[in-house]
Amino acid sequence: MPRPPDEALNRTLLALSDPTRRAILRRLADRDARVTDLAVPFDMSLAAVSKHIRVLERAGLVRRTVTGREHRLAFDAGGLVPVSEWIAAQRGVWERRLDALEAVLVKRRVAHRKA
Amino acid sequence: MPRPPDEALNRTLLALSDPTRRAILRRLADRDARVTDLAVPFDMSLAAVSKHIRVLERAGLVRRTVTGREHRLAFDAGGLVPVSEWIAAQRGVWERRLDALEAVLVKRRVAHRKA
Repeated sequence: MPRPPDEALNRTLLALSDPTRRAILRRLADRDARVTDLAVPFDMSLAAVSKHIRVLERAGLVRRTVTGREHRLAFDAGGLVPVSEWIAAQRGVWERRLDALEAVLVKRRVAHRKA
Repeated sequence: MPRPPDEALNRTLLALSDPTRRAILRRLADRDARVTDLAVPFDMSLAAVSKHIRVLERAGLVRRTVTGREHRLAFDAGGLVPVSEWIAAQRGVWERRLDALEAVLVKRRVAHRKA
């Protein structure tokens, strides 16, 4: 089975797999913030928080706006769309399979009643 | 900000962040398979595929049924639920914020018209 070119999805899922990065996104979903504001509640160095933010930016989950020396960060909900779509696709395949199984069972029951 | 005990979500997202593991899940969503059947289309050793499968099992995305020497694998769609819920929660926060912003703008427009 060939591997599809889904590097973007790899990056998004890997970015989301860290609890600190998910906490940063939760915070940013609530309101935009400066990098320095974000670092305060996390009990970690500005460098460590900055590293997590860069991972989130590369994954398309956070946007940065630079005005002079101020770096403002915003949550980008659009970055979650590929993940939602992938999950919906797998569930779709799975549900169609359950539907097909149900159809076979109903057919058998009908055949059984006629016999 | 305290880290929530969401180790299960970390494991699921990390398991999904690999394209081979996502391809295995796509294959299993379509139909159950034996470990040996799964290895064939992936052009990798049985040991390598087995390792990916163990990661998926630990993440609650794959179930294994052992009958004698036969190991059958099935997709467990329920394993995707925590990821869907997390995404829905972030989008919910984000959309409520947009709604609140819209309400403020509408209010201002009404006040402007009255003035």
